[in-house]
Amino acid sequence: MKAQQVEMYVCPMASPSDTSGLQQLADQGKLAPDTLVALVGKTEGTGSHDDWGRAWADVALREWTARFLSVPVMEVAKHVIFVLSGGCPGVITPHVAAVTRQWVDIEESAGRAPEDKRLVVGRAGSEPMGPEDVGRMGQIRKVADATRGAMRDAGLTDPRDVHLVMVKVPGLTTASIKDAESRNQSVVSHDLTFGPEGAGAYANDAAALGVGLALGEVAESALSDEVVRRDWNLYSEVAMTSSGGEKKHGEVVVFGNSSTSRSSLRIGHAVTKDFIDAQGVRNALKAAGLRFRDGLPDEADLGRLVHVFAKSVIPGSDIVRGHRITLLDDPDAYQIGKALGGMLVASVTGRTTNYVSGGERNSHQGPPGGNIVAAVVRVEG
Amino acid sequence: MKAQQVEMYVCPMASPSDTSGLQQLADQGKLAPDTLVALVGKTEGTGSHDDWGRAWADVALREWTARFLSVPVMEVAKHVIFVLSGGCPGVITPHVAAVTRQWVDIEESAGRAPEDKRLVVGRAGSEPMGPEDVGRMGQIRKVADATRGAMRDAGLTDPRDVHLVMVKVPGLTTASIKDAESRNQSVVSHDLTFGPEGAGAYANDAAALGVGLALGEVAESALSDEVVRRDWNLYSEVAMTSSGGEKKHGEVVVFGNSSTSRSSLRIGHAVTKDFIDAQGVRNALKAAGLRFRDGLPDEADLGRLVHVFAKSVIPGSDIVRGHRITLLDDPDAYQIGKALGGMLVASVTGRTTNYVSGGERNSHQGPPGGNIVAAVVRVEG
Amino acid sequence: MKAQQVEMYVCPMASPSDTSGLQQLADQGKLAPDTLVALVGKTEGTGSHDDWGRAWADVALREWTARFLSVPVMEVAKHVIFVLSGGCPGVITPHVAAVTRQWVDIEESAGRAPEDKRLVVGRAGSEPMGPEDVGRMGQIRKVADATRGAMRDAGLTDPRDVHLVMVKVPGLTTASIKDAESRNQSVVSHDLTFGPEGAGAYANDAAALGVGLALGEVAESALSDEVVRRDWNLYSEVAMTSSGGEKKHGEVVVFGNSSTSRSSLRIGHAVTKDFIDAQGVRNALKAAGLRFRDGLPDEADLGRLVHVFAKSVIPGSDIVRGHRITLLDDPDAYQIGKALGGMLVASVTGRTTNYVSGGERNSHQGPPGGNIVAAVVRVEG
Amino acid sequence: MKAQQVEMYVCPMASPSDTSGLQQLADQGKLAPDTLVALVGKTEGTGSHDDWGRAWADVALREWTARFLSVPVMEVAKHVIFVLSGGCPGVITPHVAAVTRQWVDIEESAGRAPEDKRLVVGRAGSEPMGPEDVGRMGQIRKVADATRGAMRDAGLTDPRDVHLVMVKVPGLTTASIKDAESRNQSVVSHDLTFGPEGAGAYANDAAALGVGLALGEVAESALSDEVVRRDWNLYSEVAMTSSGGEKKHGEVVVFGNSSTSRSSLRIGHAVTKDFIDAQGVRNALKAAGLRFRDGLPDEADLGRLVHVFAKSVIPGSDIVRGHRITLLDDPDAYQIGKALGGMLVASVTGRTTNYVSGGERNSHQGPPGGNIVAAVVRVEG
Repeated sequence: MKAQQVEMYVCPMASPSDTSGLQQLADQGKLAPDTLVALVGKTEGTGSHDDWGRAWADVALREWTARFLSVPVMEVAKHVIFVLSGGCPGVITPHVAAVTRQWVDIEESAGRAPEDKRLVVGRAGSEPMGPEDVGRMGQIRKVADATRGAMRDAGLTDPRDVHLVMVKVPGLTTASIKDAESRNQSVVSHDLTFGPEGAGAYANDAAALGVGLALGEVAESALSDEVVRRDWNLYSEVAMTSSGGEKKHGEVVVFGNSSTSRSSLRIGHAVTKDFIDAQGVRNALKAAGLRFRDGLPDEADLGRLVHVFAKSVIPGSDIVRGHRITLLDDPDAYQIGKALGGMLVASVTGRTTNYVSGGERNSHQGPPGGNIVAAVVRVEG
Repeated sequence: MKAQQVEMYVCPMASPSDTSGLQQLADQGKLAPDTLVALVGKTEGTGSHDDWGRAWADVALREWTARFLSVPVMEVAKHVIFVLSGGCPGVITPHVAAVTRQWVDIEESAGRAPEDKRLVVGRAGSEPMGPEDVGRMGQIRKVADATRGAMRDAGLTDPRDVHLVMVKVPGLTTASIKDAESRNQSVVSHDLTFGPEGAGAYANDAAALGVGLALGEVAESALSDEVVRRDWNLYSEVAMTSSGGEKKHGEVVVFGNSSTSRSSLRIGHAVTKDFIDAQGVRNALKAAGLRFRDGLPDEADLGRLVHVFAKSVIPGSDIVRGHRITLLDDPDAYQIGKALGGMLVASVTGRTTNYVSGGERNSHQGPPGGNIVAAVVRVEG
Repeated sequence: MKAQQVEMYVCPMASPSDTSGLQQLADQGKLAPDTLVALVGKTEGTGSHDDWGRAWADVALREWTARFLSVPVMEVAKHVIFVLSGGCPGVITPHVAAVTRQWVDIEESAGRAPEDKRLVVGRAGSEPMGPEDVGRMGQIRKVADATRGAMRDAGLTDPRDVHLVMVKVPGLTTASIKDAESRNQSVVSHDLTFGPEGAGAYANDAAALGVGLALGEVAESALSDEVVRRDWNLYSEVAMTSSGGEKKHGEVVVFGNSSTSRSSLRIGHAVTKDFIDAQGVRNALKAAGLRFRDGLPDEADLGRLVHVFAKSVIPGSDIVRGHRITLLDDPDAYQIGKALGGMLVASVTGRTTNYVSGGERNSHQGPPGGNIVAAVVRVEG
Repeated sequence: MKAQQVEMYVCPMASPSDTSGLQQLADQGKLAPDTLVALVGKTEGTGSHDDWGRAWADVALREWTARFLSVPVMEVAKHVIFVLSGGCPGVITPHVAAVTRQWVDIEESAGRAPEDKRLVVGRAGSEPMGPEDVGRMGQIRKVADATRGAMRDAGLTDPRDVHLVMVKVPGLTTASIKDAESRNQSVVSHDLTFGPEGAGAYANDAAALGVGLALGEVAESALSDEVVRRDWNLYSEVAMTSSGGEKKHGEVVVFGNSSTSRSSLRIGHAVTKDFIDAQGVRNALKAAGLRFRDGLPDEADLGRLVHVFAKSVIPGSDIVRGHRITLLDDPDAYQIGKALGGMLVASVTGRTTNYVSGGERNSHQGPPGGNIVAAVVRVEG
């Protein structure tokens, strides 16, 4: 039978258009046109709606990939999924992580012990989503279907083996709102931002609930248009979602562990209990199998830590462990909230090349007040 | 002989003018007009030059203190030192810490064991500083003298017993620059900000070098106008300094440990080795005598942690542990840099009521890239 | 019969708590406890939700007024209406305008010629508004009733004599939303900001439609919850509204011209046709009776200009006179939009002491893309 | 003899990488590889140090130009001068203006009447400038020489015929400062920003004084390192300068009017007397020959206005026409100051496609408190 062999390479970027790290991997034969499945990165820039750093990086990475795959830029998305999160405030190093997947032949019998499962990855696109679907049940169901598809592509059947689901879905635009209303369809919001009532936030959160639905974290009976961004007790512990107005359908990448995988990587995840919970970050590293000493990651073992993916959603309450913080009233909360997550993770991993996205207030990505952290670790042998 | 008994009370503030916490302490008899020696706080607001949150808090706290001491507002400063640091971005709870000092009679002989020294505090004002002194040897020498005076007031002779020196000095204003130049005196800068060449930064750093000179951390022979904000290898590990245009002379508060102290508090300090060094923060808690378990502060013992004072100066280099960060180019670096320090400390102390000031780039307060952290712990018995 | 004699005095403020200008007017006998009816000002500070400059100014002005009227601070609002707009970015001088009203005896017959009508002012409070009213018909109707009441208090019957209606209404807070939902009432938004879908914007716009309804600018048949912040063709040309979470009912101040007024002031208004329309500002000055020469305000006559009140609402479209602007995507749009209005007005009036509020995107205050400008001029004799 | 025929085309840009406007001009035969001499534009983005919108636009425009000229990107600068000013806050439409120059044969005698002089353009590069030159006499003298060279290239001899001089010079970088100090050379500042004591501001202002020196606006005897950013009475009325760390030598483009020019364009300039002086903007349009009616630009004639170039330097004083503004203390002053200039110009020209750069505080570009405005108008026949 065919088994996956997945690798992940983290390349710091010296500028939004710096593809030298990827080129180096290609020159070293670590990337091949037929093995590159995803590019996941943090780009420097404002992180806001008109983030030209992200826009430039997106163009530069797609152009590099088109050349690498020898396909037209327009067709790159058919072969490689791009997840670029804008904004590297504070101690987040701009970088792109390349994910590769090879298929190798193994005997039916050759399954690993449950405690030694290894990394697999799966991808799937969703049905087209109309503007009236955004932030509502339509989007939730279509993301759930795509998540199930990506699990199949990954060869995963048990939701407990899924540790990270990255999703990109359509948001709303002035144009798509006009379109919907011209067809007498309502839209979830006229606010195009990622603010509390922004379409971007609704799209991200519907996507998160879609993942939760597919993984059984959220019961279908509990879901309706009304609960999106209202009932915060409904959430996924592994969904990291983003949205863009230009997209027409959703994309899903699932990361999990499988006993048939031939990868030398393993993924694990945990959630923080609140905004300052470093232990939650440590738990994710532990879950992935990193060795600890004296309650802290073993310095000597940190070399095996390949990458960390974390959200930094701002809590909905201004009380953290009994005391008031002013972050919710801060006009720069979006930037600062993201930066704080970067520090929380960096202070544990001892490095700044972590994938940390967020800044939005409240989310169905992770429990109320807490955030999702996933870690990928290299396994001996 | 007379010995000190020092107490410290941390009061969260619900708004810049909230003095209810202090009033409650007064009603409980914990504060007395003749024992209150300092109010040290973090105020919510922009943290920038025209921070009305800080300005309002300053007025409200002085008015409250004037009523409490039954003296005119103008005379409050003769009795109580105010150190208010503006800006609580992220996870820094606005608060004010009240420091009280009583004198009790003890026998000459009754000294504590060296390992059981306890908290003492001392204060002193400096000679007047002219605008031409700001950021230069004049300011350095006058702060050094005042630091020695404050040590005497604290009853401290060994610099190794000094763990925190808070200093406020005059900065420059449009008016004071005019005055100096009308007398054909030059000034260190025409930039009134806390930017890399700002007068505020020069004043803070001259004050830090003054503390270093008094404590023997910096050799007088190594000092000159030219080294201020140039030779970063000259620094103090215990100086936290601030400057304001309106002031005419400097104020110094020294915190240290003494074998004759009758306080039930002890102070300790450490420095972080770089901007993401949580271990440096843990070391400060350890130095103050907090119990650790598995390399982390013992949850059960954290109740004894009274307060933490930390700087969060942005590094002068954009490389942290080998990787590039974009903070130095960020227009919001001042805010974000302060917020990141707040997270680094809160993620260790498990609380948000920490005193964290900073945001400026590079400083003689702490080693290059690192920052100062001091912790006050309650001692059993 | 009794006729009004209204005066308006503009006092620049050197800081948020500077009441010296008002005190000077009081010392000169220009203000009397029984004639002061309103204080309308622009306060320096961030202009955002937690604007401590505005908060401090509000406290300082109320305390001064309480002393001046010899009433408790809590009762000041019964005698004087406070309208403080936060944020003076760019070329807007922080200031407060004091409005006084005296009643003088005149003969029934002694009416002025229609073209010589003079300034009158009227005030009224509204019915209490619950959180479920905010941004909806409930708020619209209650503001309309209060506007009619204020017209009666001003002695105005013809809506064409009304040139400026300042309104303050309750917005939403976390607490009031909880309250409404506990009573199974929905609220218009969970976004507490002044963003496109923010409760603050909905409250301001419902208030504007309420004024439009009272003045016949908007037909009751055209109004419903659904049109608020949706149908921009419904608007008032004289409503300047603001909202605050803490308030429980609305307050309305009407400024108009009457033939029985004994004031030496006259008010006029106009609207700008788009965001860069200086002619619209000039038209307001002309409407108030300022003399023009060569299409521009006569320099010699500008001394008669007492004050200008203008909105600076950001257009809903990113096209201005056929070309794209980036303001709508600017994270600082709220600040910059306000600043731009300040410049548009100052470049016409030749002074910076103008009342300019705004920054929100789209509004029922003024036509789509345009803004409201009202001017008060001193009349000879 | 050879005479110049200069054209200028303004192309709005839909995004930082939008070169469609230039391509359209090329397709229409309005641009030819041998006539394109300069591209001057405003790019959308943060406008600050790490403005990726500007960086992306710079790359995109150079790549387009390289293809258009059929030369390697590295050699583009030999043929075309690029002046891109980052940041389009408020009502400044992102755009690029293409300047072309053809040489046509005319008779010696065929000079125009003095009042009918037409647009000419000239370019020159400067001697290399070392980091120790930046912001000092070295830079001033080298810019002066290059300005004289550009005047010769333009065929201009009388400084009164020069109405706009655009200059780009090297600033400082961490690397170039290291280099200078390793050679025991001092640098003017360690602050790399455009703040009051920033190297960027010093470079811009030395360049402005260089232009002033070449045009006789500033006497050589009045110049020294000490007067740069100190003596604001020394200034040029036609210099618009910018600086970038990466450059090694200066570039100068001179725009003026000549009696031998065969252009159908004319340029004129004026200065504003202060930050809100719309009349100064109108004077520039008048100086270029635009028809006025009733003291305002004749609407019907505004079609002849080709382009406006304006600076928006923030005044050094916080007093504008007798009243205090808070702009100097505003952390966003750089953005807001630029936006305000954009509004001042747009409110006069009735369009948003104006070139407005600035935001820095105080400058030798224009008189104290005032700014430079140049206008290009199409002439009938």
